[in-house]
Amino acid sequence: MSHIEKVQEWLADNNYQVGYISNFKNIQYFTGFSSDPIERTLALFIFPDQEPFIFAPALEVEAVKDVGWKHPVYGYLDHQDPYQIIKEKILAKVKTPRRWAIEKSNLNVSRFEELQRKFSHASFNGNLTPLIQKEQLIKTPAEIEKLKIAGKWADFAFEVGFKALSTKRTEQDVAAEIEYALKKKGITHTSFDTIIQSGANAAEPHGEPKKDLIKPNKLVLFDLGVIYEGYISDASRTVAFGKKLDDRSKEIYKVCLEAQLAAQEAVKPGIRAEDLDKIARRIIEKAGYGEFFIHRLGHGMGQSEHEFPSIMEGNDMELAPGMCFSIEPGIYVPGVAGVRIEDCVHVTETGAQPFTHTSKELQFLPLV
Amino acid sequence: MSHIEKVQEWLADNNYQVGYISNFKNIQYFTGFSSDPIERTLALFIFPDQEPFIFAPALEVEAVKDVGWKHPVYGYLDHQDPYQIIKEKILAKVKTPRRWAIEKSNLNVSRFEELQRKFSHASFNGNLTPLIQKEQLIKTPAEIEKLKIAGKWADFAFEVGFKALSTKRTEQDVAAEIEYALKKKGITHTSFDTIIQSGANAAEPHGEPKKDLIKPNKLVLFDLGVIYEGYISDASRTVAFGKKLDDRSKEIYKVCLEAQLAAQEAVKPGIRAEDLDKIARRIIEKAGYGEFFIHRLGHGMGQSEHEFPSIMEGNDMELAPGMCFSIEPGIYVPGVAGVRIEDCVHVTETGAQPFTHTSKELQFLPLV
Repeated sequence: MSHIEKVQEWLADNNYQVGYISNFKNIQYFTGFSSDPIERTLALFIFPDQEPFIFAPALEVEAVKDVGWKHPVYGYLDHQDPYQIIKEKILAKVKTPRRWAIEKSNLNVSRFEELQRKFSHASFNGNLTPLIQKEQLIKTPAEIEKLKIAGKWADFAFEVGFKALSTKRTEQDVAAEIEYALKKKGITHTSFDTIIQSGANAAEPHGEPKKDLIKPNKLVLFDLGVIYEGYISDASRTVAFGKKLDDRSKEIYKVCLEAQLAAQEAVKPGIRAEDLDKIARRIIEKAGYGEFFIHRLGHGMGQSEHEFPSIMEGNDMELAPGMCFSIEPGIYVPGVAGVRIEDCVHVTETGAQPFTHTSKELQFLPLV
Repeated sequence: MSHIEKVQEWLADNNYQVGYISNFKNIQYFTGFSSDPIERTLALFIFPDQEPFIFAPALEVEAVKDVGWKHPVYGYLDHQDPYQIIKEKILAKVKTPRRWAIEKSNLNVSRFEELQRKFSHASFNGNLTPLIQKEQLIKTPAEIEKLKIAGKWADFAFEVGFKALSTKRTEQDVAAEIEYALKKKGITHTSFDTIIQSGANAAEPHGEPKKDLIKPNKLVLFDLGVIYEGYISDASRTVAFGKKLDDRSKEIYKVCLEAQLAAQEAVKPGIRAEDLDKIARRIIEKAGYGEFFIHRLGHGMGQSEHEFPSIMEGNDMELAPGMCFSIEPGIYVPGVAGVRIEDCVHVTETGAQPFTHTSKELQFLPLV
């Protein structure tokens, strides 16, 4: 059963007449057509027992056909009211569309109110968000193949980045070298802005690379990933640049690595997401660094790094084969150092397989 | 009066007790703090007569302080319910927050429903979106200075891109060369993915660069821009690669250039947005290419390329000094060629000043 057919079945089972998908990443998931419409309207309408259609800006209509979409696609011009055209197209299919399901985590209040105005006798209580999230939770073998290839490109990026380290290069320069090398190989999109942080800069989680030179004899944190055929990689490594690393940095690394390995080792079908978080967090707490691990252990991933399951306190979801997520403990000691070590993995019948294979042992790279 | 003070005044005038800004780009506009929280919650709360506060993921709290935010910032951890904490912080300021204004074009239905649950006696009818859009419509001299610098970097990018053209490079390679050169100069972010399209590929508007080699004796379309201190540039040039360009491509270029120049020349305070569109469109229609100009003439820009004023049919807004927008007619003839020529400009007391200065005359670049 295709992704769209599953939605059709759910709509029928729940007596909804129209399903409205508005998140462009989910439109890609269902149709293969990838485009961020920003303030324009891009929508996929699914019906329990009729053909779905895509509604798109006029200048995207040809691109929708190019990806092999077999159903209708309707366009609108910038000066037209998209919801008026949507209304006409919907009414041509469903005489009195009273019961709708929408993506509540995506549709904004303005558009919601516009829908309410155009279909004033309808209710919009159905929520497609949980259904889609559940659908995307278990990756198919074909999806896992793409994630593996995306992971290989992350390993390639680490290799480039490690070689690019130099006291004459800034953090931004190293990021530029990595992205340039990827683009020359035809990998045009990273899954997020490549993060390179040297020394104490790495104590700021989610920080951007700065114009600061790479510092000798300090740790350097890399967090990066690419998009391969719509599927991402996301991995972090922290390496020593030079041989004379201070003991504190070494200790932080050791604790973080122990936590990462323990959690990754513990993955198996049936374990709860929150328990993985606990395994890593206890190791870091025991070593006295609990206050410096200020985010969840991991996030689900697939088409983006913001899917389910969330690996955190309070999530009692049991892990199952095909789930994909990051395991990324981090210890950020302000003014001293930051360490994050991350693999994304998929759950197998017996454990976890990582998508990235760059060594996690502390590497001492030569000072150049 | 600061941006925040203007919102405070509006809230007071309209008897709203709480203003909730959820769009992260607008949070940057009001606070200087720039971060895309994706599925996490980042919010700015403004009150008519009390101090505003930022609510952010715990791992962003230090970064908020680093940008010099003088008011409170409250964090939440991944396993906490953000709206429960928001409720407590709001109630500490306003005993019975009954009248709210939200960003209707940004807040999604899930979060809206969550707010309604947490504040069940409140109404959320106020809409901050039009106020903010109006506020951002007229750029200050300081904003225009940043836009000019962003424009200079776009000119630099064209220079790099024109030199990078080669029959041995793909469209993607040329994009990679441009972005690499920018990053080495410390310009870390483009305002969108750099577009390079050669020959008939350019007939697909908003298309991505492909793995196709740059074709000799064909037009090449460049559409690019950078972000400089939160402000963007956005410009398009189409050049001939080689001297033996076919007559059809030359004609399309000539028509498009005439339309672009005529519209840019016509800009002055008081003219309506739709009239600019009409000036360009009539020239293209008269030449017989009307059906191939399938988008509006331009979009407002500043912090993003999706602001007001929209330069299109049906927008009777009168232009005024400080407004910034693109003028970008395009002619896309499937299977033949695509031409787009674009400057972004700011309206002055007497006309328009472009942010980019790369020549718009048809350039014949040497075949290499």
